[in-house]
Amino acid sequence: MRECLENVRKRNPLIHNITNYVTINDVANALLACGGSPIMAEAVEEVEEITVGCAGLNINIGMLKPAKARAMELAGLQAQREGHVILLDPVGVGAGAFRRETVKRLMEKIQFTAIRGNISEIRVVAELVGVLNSDAKYKGVAEVSGSDRRSNAIVENPEGKAPESAGERNREKNHGVDATPEEAVTEENAETVAEFVKKLAGRTGSIIAVTGRIDLVADEKICYRIKNGRPEMSRITGTGCQLSGMMTAFLAANPGCPLKAAAAAVCCMGLAGEKAWEHMAAGEGNASYRNRIIDAISLMEGEALEKGAQYEIC
Amino acid sequence: MRECLENVRKRNPLIHNITNYVTINDVANALLACGGSPIMAEAVEEVEEITVGCAGLNINIGMLKPAKARAMELAGLQAQREGHVILLDPVGVGAGAFRRETVKRLMEKIQFTAIRGNISEIRVVAELVGVLNSDAKYKGVAEVSGSDRRSNAIVENPEGKAPESAGERNREKNHGVDATPEEAVTEENAETVAEFVKKLAGRTGSIIAVTGRIDLVADEKICYRIKNGRPEMSRITGTGCQLSGMMTAFLAANPGCPLKAAAAAVCCMGLAGEKAWEHMAAGEGNASYRNRIIDAISLMEGEALEKGAQYEIC
Amino acid sequence: MRECLENVRKRNPLIHNITNYVTINDVANALLACGGSPIMAEAVEEVEEITVGCAGLNINIGMLKPAKARAMELAGLQAQREGHVILLDPVGVGAGAFRRETVKRLMEKIQFTAIRGNISEIRVVAELVGVLNSDAKYKGVAEVSGSDRRSNAIVENPEGKAPESAGERNREKNHGVDATPEEAVTEENAETVAEFVKKLAGRTGSIIAVTGRIDLVADEKICYRIKNGRPEMSRITGTGCQLSGMMTAFLAANPGCPLKAAAAAVCCMGLAGEKAWEHMAAGEGNASYRNRIIDAISLMEGEALEKGAQYEIC
Repeated sequence: MRECLENVRKRNPLIHNITNYVTINDVANALLACGGSPIMAEAVEEVEEITVGCAGLNINIGMLKPAKARAMELAGLQAQREGHVILLDPVGVGAGAFRRETVKRLMEKIQFTAIRGNISEIRVVAELVGVLNSDAKYKGVAEVSGSDRRSNAIVENPEGKAPESAGERNREKNHGVDATPEEAVTEENAETVAEFVKKLAGRTGSIIAVTGRIDLVADEKICYRIKNGRPEMSRITGTGCQLSGMMTAFLAANPGCPLKAAAAAVCCMGLAGEKAWEHMAAGEGNASYRNRIIDAISLMEGEALEKGAQYEIC
Repeated sequence: MRECLENVRKRNPLIHNITNYVTINDVANALLACGGSPIMAEAVEEVEEITVGCAGLNINIGMLKPAKARAMELAGLQAQREGHVILLDPVGVGAGAFRRETVKRLMEKIQFTAIRGNISEIRVVAELVGVLNSDAKYKGVAEVSGSDRRSNAIVENPEGKAPESAGERNREKNHGVDATPEEAVTEENAETVAEFVKKLAGRTGSIIAVTGRIDLVADEKICYRIKNGRPEMSRITGTGCQLSGMMTAFLAANPGCPLKAAAAAVCCMGLAGEKAWEHMAAGEGNASYRNRIIDAISLMEGEALEKGAQYEIC
Repeated sequence: MRECLENVRKRNPLIHNITNYVTINDVANALLACGGSPIMAEAVEEVEEITVGCAGLNINIGMLKPAKARAMELAGLQAQREGHVILLDPVGVGAGAFRRETVKRLMEKIQFTAIRGNISEIRVVAELVGVLNSDAKYKGVAEVSGSDRRSNAIVENPEGKAPESAGERNREKNHGVDATPEEAVTEENAETVAEFVKKLAGRTGSIIAVTGRIDLVADEKICYRIKNGRPEMSRITGTGCQLSGMMTAFLAANPGCPLKAAAAAVCCMGLAGEKAWEHMAAGEGNASYRNRIIDAISLMEGEALEKGAQYEIC
């Protein structure tokens, strides 16, 4: 994990982001915090030229519009020709036909290095490529997620962690009425979901990262099961989008070990959430927590990540 | 007031926002802070489908563009068919013909649950529906606002409170040169303006919320006169936009008492401004104040709101 | 310097910004912090009408799109007819043909009061107007910048200061591998670059502000060489964009002394970066630094600016 972060700091990869406007500033600052450099460009007139000079491309479909979808396709194809890292964040792909069809088309044309989303989003991606429906074994996953259509649509809170109010640490159970995606990955079903994620990775040829209370990052053969993070991260918009930007930088800076790099990005974000929580002072709530998480990323040392990362490989 | 906030926390209403990009992140975080969930979508290709799955729609015309105006109309009509709460924030409607005509068309086609703006914006809305000009009694309001065309146009500071520099608490009078909208609602004229606002509420069938130093929230018969808040809130962009998002969530979570819910949202924002100010430390100015206000919303308990809300009903 | 800031606070100029979405919120809050008022509007349907009511226009080409480019042109021509201050921030102009051609066209049609960018951006601007290539004397500048094409493209970090991680104050030399634009202006070559900048100012009729480790602000005859600021400002997105907004306000509020006003804005931002750094607490990184800089702007008094400004006139 240590070297993965250190390589981002050392190589300072320039990442081209085509992303939603809700969290675009946070994505830029999170990229700078981890050691990357952000560039944002989304005009069809320039995305190809811009992406050539970058090391990676982060495509996030929040607040999607047709012109932006075309720019994503052009940039993705160009990045592919250049051999760049390309990440897809299918924000709210379950919310409607427009996002679903765009993701389908992008996946047909572009070989993504990694796809990162919450379990509901990843489930829709799996449906689009025919993994989920064809296999009764994953019905458990579908059922859990199926009870959670609403949070599928929470574009700006893609992590979908517990709807616990920041600052009210110990009340989590009171909010158990809501079916939220983090229930999808629990100690009980993590193994089953990990198999599903590996299968999806095999089918797509992409690293699949499912983030939630337990995070799973897998290729066809190996799955990292990560427990860093705090439930309060769900009361801030944008931690998922930030992670997608960072993961693109980690992948770009660590070409020799993509799966480990993707897992390191997830651990880094989760650990930053933990460290940020420790610094919360009286009177601080979700806005300060947002800032403190980015702060913690910017201060994260390779050694701290190595020691704080909590994961098993399965 | 207490139950209004507690209902937002309990019911966690998903609010669809079509809003400006200046404060879009703050709107999302303020919605999460008060207990709602935000979704942002503005492509005509998806707004109808997205809004169906939500509990309320928040339309904010800052940074308006034609395609966005069409999306607002489509989403508004769909939300209306679904019986959802719909709020209009006519940001800078006085700044030009494009915004004025868009607001006029939206108001003709969509029955808004609530309209929230500063006195200058609400005056323009009243002109558009023929309330203000037809009644000499409200000339006083028109005159005060008329001297204040400029702040009509301050898209990104729609509260238009005193132009006092954050951190310079006791200098307010030094800035009295500027004619700013908060002068429109004073202890002296509040009763006259309240009558005007009730009349506009009657004409439009919407709850009207005028925010400024004194806030007025009225339906045809009843007006809440609210004194929470601090003048320093005007030195931050976005408190008005945030309030519109929150008010939509309060209305959606409290279908039985819309007027009280709208007033509770206004009290909650104002009280958060007061509590945030108490936490300001040495060296902190308007950026920290922005964060501390959202923090205070996220930490606000029903009981604190009940005790801290300062209003009269008239 | 003192009166320049005090005039912004007193006159509260309304600034029309057509700017990128990454830093749009920061630009609004920085404008409010320094004493100006922001308005954002970019629809061709309204930019002319909006800009008439303002005191200045800030055009920033980050995240450029064709419709936005047309709006910039319309707004610029209208502002010119009104005799308003007009500033150009050529963000990432070296990143591709679309931005370069847009800047070229804007410069042909609009007489900018000031142009502000990092050395790489200003070099491209100089090429566009034929200053750089025609004069072998400035080859040194071109060479330094030429080794640095990548950071030309760092749209969201236009200052391009040292790639030092915020919070790691004393490690700057470890990051010296990267060729970054601030190397372009050093103690050694500052005089040569100042001559180049004066020449460009003469050719364009605009004040030219080059920001980096050493900032240069010049008209045809006089150059301010400014040393305020901290290298950590480069690990935040948007300090350059914020400065462009502020500089437009300083120019609008000080019509009698534009060069001094532009230099005062640069000193104010740099000094805010210094003061903000002094307030950094344990556990704080780049996100907190961002907030603390805007805080410091909002708390900056004329006298503090007068005393803290570090510049020579040459």
